[in-house]
Amino acid sequence: MTTLNQITTPKSIAIVGASDNKNRIGGRPLSHMIEQNFEGTVYPVNPNRDKVQGLKSYPNLQDIPGDLDFVLIAVPAKFVVNVIEDAVKKNARTALIFSSGFSEIGGEGEVYQKKIREICDQSNLRVIGPNCLGLFNSQSRFYPTFTSTIDRATPIPGDISIASQSGAYGSHIYMVSHQRGLGIRYWITTGNEADLSVGEAIQLLAEDDNVHTIMAYVESVKNGKQFINALETARQEKKPVILMKVGRSDVGAAAANSHTASLAGEDAIYEEVVRAHGAYRVRSTEEMLDVAYATKPKIYPTGKNLGIVTISGGGGVLMADAASDVGLKVGAMPEGAQKELKEIVPFASPMNPVDVTAQFFNDLSIVPKFIDLMLSQGGYDGIIGFWTSVAGSPKMSQPLLNALKQAMSNYSEKIFINSMVASEDIVKHYEKEGFLSIEDPTRAVVSMAALMYFGEKFNEKIEKIEIQPPLKINIPKRNLNEIECVEILEKFDINLNKGKLIKNVQEIKNIYKDIEDGYVMKVVSKDIQHKTEIGGISINIKSLIEAETKYDEILQNVKTKSPKALIDGVMISPMIKGGVEAILGAKVDPVFGPVVMFGLGGIYTEVLKDISFAEAPLNKKLAKKMISRLKSAKMFEGARGLKLNLDHLLDNIVKLSEFIYIYKDFVKEVEMNPLVIKEDMVIGLDALIIPNLEGEKNA
Amino acid sequence: MTTLNQITTPKSIAIVGASDNKNRIGGRPLSHMIEQNFEGTVYPVNPNRDKVQGLKSYPNLQDIPGDLDFVLIAVPAKFVVNVIEDAVKKNARTALIFSSGFSEIGGEGEVYQKKIREICDQSNLRVIGPNCLGLFNSQSRFYPTFTSTIDRATPIPGDISIASQSGAYGSHIYMVSHQRGLGIRYWITTGNEADLSVGEAIQLLAEDDNVHTIMAYVESVKNGKQFINALETARQEKKPVILMKVGRSDVGAAAANSHTASLAGEDAIYEEVVRAHGAYRVRSTEEMLDVAYATKPKIYPTGKNLGIVTISGGGGVLMADAASDVGLKVGAMPEGAQKELKEIVPFASPMNPVDVTAQFFNDLSIVPKFIDLMLSQGGYDGIIGFWTSVAGSPKMSQPLLNALKQAMSNYSEKIFINSMVASEDIVKHYEKEGFLSIEDPTRAVVSMAALMYFGEKFNEKIEKIEIQPPLKINIPKRNLNEIECVEILEKFDINLNKGKLIKNVQEIKNIYKDIEDGYVMKVVSKDIQHKTEIGGISINIKSLIEAETKYDEILQNVKTKSPKALIDGVMISPMIKGGVEAILGAKVDPVFGPVVMFGLGGIYTEVLKDISFAEAPLNKKLAKKMISRLKSAKMFEGARGLKLNLDHLLDNIVKLSEFIYIYKDFVKEVEMNPLVIKEDMVIGLDALIIPNLEGEKNA
Repeated sequence: MTTLNQITTPKSIAIVGASDNKNRIGGRPLSHMIEQNFEGTVYPVNPNRDKVQGLKSYPNLQDIPGDLDFVLIAVPAKFVVNVIEDAVKKNARTALIFSSGFSEIGGEGEVYQKKIREICDQSNLRVIGPNCLGLFNSQSRFYPTFTSTIDRATPIPGDISIASQSGAYGSHIYMVSHQRGLGIRYWITTGNEADLSVGEAIQLLAEDDNVHTIMAYVESVKNGKQFINALETARQEKKPVILMKVGRSDVGAAAANSHTASLAGEDAIYEEVVRAHGAYRVRSTEEMLDVAYATKPKIYPTGKNLGIVTISGGGGVLMADAASDVGLKVGAMPEGAQKELKEIVPFASPMNPVDVTAQFFNDLSIVPKFIDLMLSQGGYDGIIGFWTSVAGSPKMSQPLLNALKQAMSNYSEKIFINSMVASEDIVKHYEKEGFLSIEDPTRAVVSMAALMYFGEKFNEKIEKIEIQPPLKINIPKRNLNEIECVEILEKFDINLNKGKLIKNVQEIKNIYKDIEDGYVMKVVSKDIQHKTEIGGISINIKSLIEAETKYDEILQNVKTKSPKALIDGVMISPMIKGGVEAILGAKVDPVFGPVVMFGLGGIYTEVLKDISFAEAPLNKKLAKKMISRLKSAKMFEGARGLKLNLDHLLDNIVKLSEFIYIYKDFVKEVEMNPLVIKEDMVIGLDALIIPNLEGEKNA
Repeated sequence: MTTLNQITTPKSIAIVGASDNKNRIGGRPLSHMIEQNFEGTVYPVNPNRDKVQGLKSYPNLQDIPGDLDFVLIAVPAKFVVNVIEDAVKKNARTALIFSSGFSEIGGEGEVYQKKIREICDQSNLRVIGPNCLGLFNSQSRFYPTFTSTIDRATPIPGDISIASQSGAYGSHIYMVSHQRGLGIRYWITTGNEADLSVGEAIQLLAEDDNVHTIMAYVESVKNGKQFINALETARQEKKPVILMKVGRSDVGAAAANSHTASLAGEDAIYEEVVRAHGAYRVRSTEEMLDVAYATKPKIYPTGKNLGIVTISGGGGVLMADAASDVGLKVGAMPEGAQKELKEIVPFASPMNPVDVTAQFFNDLSIVPKFIDLMLSQGGYDGIIGFWTSVAGSPKMSQPLLNALKQAMSNYSEKIFINSMVASEDIVKHYEKEGFLSIEDPTRAVVSMAALMYFGEKFNEKIEKIEIQPPLKINIPKRNLNEIECVEILEKFDINLNKGKLIKNVQEIKNIYKDIEDGYVMKVVSKDIQHKTEIGGISINIKSLIEAETKYDEILQNVKTKSPKALIDGVMISPMIKGGVEAILGAKVDPVFGPVVMFGLGGIYTEVLKDISFAEAPLNKKLAKKMISRLKSAKMFEGARGLKLNLDHLLDNIVKLSEFIYIYKDFVKEVEMNPLVIKEDMVIGLDALIIPNLEGEKNA
């Protein structure tokens, strides 16, 4: 089993392509390690020199005495495979490849990268890169990286670590972290990921006792299962993973694609996977840094009720708005406690936001009194204090800090974020005394929301999902017509508007009965997916004669508009009127495997795209949560004047999730649109299964 | 007419309640003006002293020789009215009241404030405050304010100004602006707004030649018309107004309310008014500052196509995502230009984001080449360059700046925002050379979007709206039943499902005809607004007998469930089936007057709240724009397989907008829910008018 230690704390390391020039890719890591006094042994490999940067140089790996732990490779792509083979011979556990010219350029590069992968599979060697910027371990001063940022900012070990698919952006994150005073212990860039992926890097960091907070930059995940395991490991260890997954937009996804030569995948599914496994997804580097900074005290509140104390009423309003934007509650103080606050400062706004007013300047002892009342009686899960720039005045900063220390002395398990405009010195002084300080009040609120998010996620139990032993259904490897789709799904107790297949107009009179809402007739053909456009569907049929006429019409329309389609017949089924139209579907995502989707149906699917995803299989509780994530959740949960059979809906979602889970190797997609939800039941009016024609590849 | 000069550049000023103690409210402004060398004459008024802070003191205003331009008041509330009267006698043009104890405490305070208002109305005196923190003019060093921020940060005149309803938050905005290096010329806080409102402050700033950018913090607007005029003045002058309007959330609105004792109003209408008149609404102080900073070059692109050039592919992806979030286009480079880029740097990503790659380190001349190709051939309206921290290295910063200067030398009318991690010195150096620098790339994108927003708004023409001479409709001052509502709206050519009023079951057979979709029957009563809940409505009636039975049933239901309601009869009208349900309404907003609303109807109105507002009256073009602001816009504009009569819809919106505009004094609200939109026409199935029972107050 690979450990972080194996990769980041070698005792012996060779640098193949070591350069005497400290500015070259092969020179920088050596110079870093010499200057920073790396605690292991470094062997430069360069056949053209006896010494490199003052160290004895070796013509090749084989000439180095004894085994090696780590081989750093900075030679052109065409030489890399040989070096990797040599590394295996030297029993190296890790090789890190700076060189570019692999899968990102295609052709020969692709072949090289595949060969490297094969060597990994057949040996104990783990490979990082190629086409990566390297890694560092600031504790052992191990710097196999050519980033120039560490020249300008020597890493300070702390319990935060960084994993990044992008080298340049990974360096950027490191740099801004350093400037923010965050101690970065491990920094790992994964480049083309011939072997070690950013997901596995997160996994290794989550398993390491020296790491608490993990920042990760991700463009695309190749192994979804492994990525999920990594996030789950971190969640179980109560370690925050702060994730920047880019490629949310079309242009962004295209750029990520050209950048890393791998498919960015569907963003909504990434969003759901990240959420389901407790990582926090950020949208900007600034937010990433703020949240990482806010994890310093390692306090993750389990509730979302925010207390705001301020000397600016206006600032309080602004923060209440921001809290609402990120889903926090700004609950009112109990009336009794409000009265007590008013007794202390008659002009105070006591509700929450709590405004201490300018009385603050006359008597700072009101601050601990106010905060004590808020924490003891307000039931807040966290408090933000906003003091504008007055806390930054030399006259006020120390007395306010004293007041805050007194205020929080009985509440060491509660989180308090300080928002103030102050000099770096004053901020550092507050931090030393344990007070987080985020200047912009909105950013303070967003950071608090992130801590509360982690608090919620760290305490979520994994749902146990029991699936009935799978039915044996034969799903043919060919396109299916609607009747076939309905029959398959019915075996899973999914409720569909099953009709009768008519192959001859004479058959209609044998089955026709007068019913209130009449019938619908549709052409049945595995070759036709959009029936409406070609006149292959007819609704509101209210008499036998009408049915017989429509039968002929439909067949005529289809023959004219889709002359090549093989027609199995016409399906006749009762019209289903009323109810709310939803869409229920499932598919096998190429990255994350079987997922279910549910959302607003009919024309709303396309226009509002209010769709919720979840990993399959689900139980009813998870299906309910999935619905609750929709903007239109209230519609299905019971809006005014609308009674829908939620329980039957949940049943159908769960059943479909089991179906896609069990048949993930045989089915690519399944969809019912519309699924009609009524007061008494839920029923799919249409069913489409797209089989996996390539066979069992999606396991 | 009041000018900014009159308020902010007096020659003679009296301070009533002047204190010798520089830390007291009455001492600070005097000390600021003495220390900063205010260019006018200051007369301290204090009956207990001969001298205050070294200046001759006067027992009261009347003892000061000659007229006064400005009177600053720092005495308890109960003395203020007398001072104001004295100020009028001294021909003062402006009085500024620090004192609290007015409308914000109610009772006596309310009476004082009303009295002050009356004096303003009857004289030439303009009053700022009460309960405000004052103002400043950094050019003339006029500091009638007791904020402590200016002790720590002496204002530097520039062409940015601040107007704020909140004193403490206004000070905060000033402080962070100062730290950001923004020169603030005027700073005005308006407090309780007995006379001068934040809207008028914006107006005066917009009219002043020395002001370009206006930052405003607003909790609530009292005079909507005046506020709109102010924003329009700024828009016409092409001066950006960066507006923080708080109270977006319920708790925020409640807090704003308690804070300023005035109604926060409906946020969606504020949002629309701000947008319609070209101000830019920010959600955080940081965004406010970023946008103000970005207005420095006074370049406002007219298009929204963003070019991104970067040395970090990952950063490029992130910025493309951010651009999509804020509605910018990240258009691809033309193929020919991509080829040219590839010729310069074979490994470059040439599409946009354009990645210059590490070749940057070897040859900076590629930067001007790349940017020149982007600007000359890419058609971008603005460019952001993201250089991570490499631009911050002493070795790279000057050469990069030279390269950028060369790149932009032929494009002085184009905006370029630089995003880099660099020391304050380097940033200042770039700024001096005309390059904006915003460290976080996402913030750079948001700021660019704001500049493009202003570019769009500054060039929008005011729509000329012609209204037919008003019809004479009598709208009774009492509740109206549905038949009455329909008849009123029909006179405006609004299409409604008009029915016949039946007062006796016998009448039904005279009008009943067999029609395909049957009839709907509803109770008609001005006392009943929710008919469904009490069984006052029946649908799908398909025979005469059914109609007669339902007539009796409805009356019976209503008598049982609403025994006190006066019943005018039962309305029978044809069933309207199919189509999309929308809501169309209008109301007279207490702040902004007549507005129209349109959005998703039926159950979706409540669940999705996808509603768009616009000021009335509208023309078709504006009505179309109003629809385009909906999340569900596509539905009405023509989604796949859905043909709706958009033209008839626009007609009905325009007509309703004219109705509410003309009858704004007589009607409070009008609503059609659902309004059904079909392929052939638009028709309201229901109509409700709520008359203004208080008479012509909303003019």
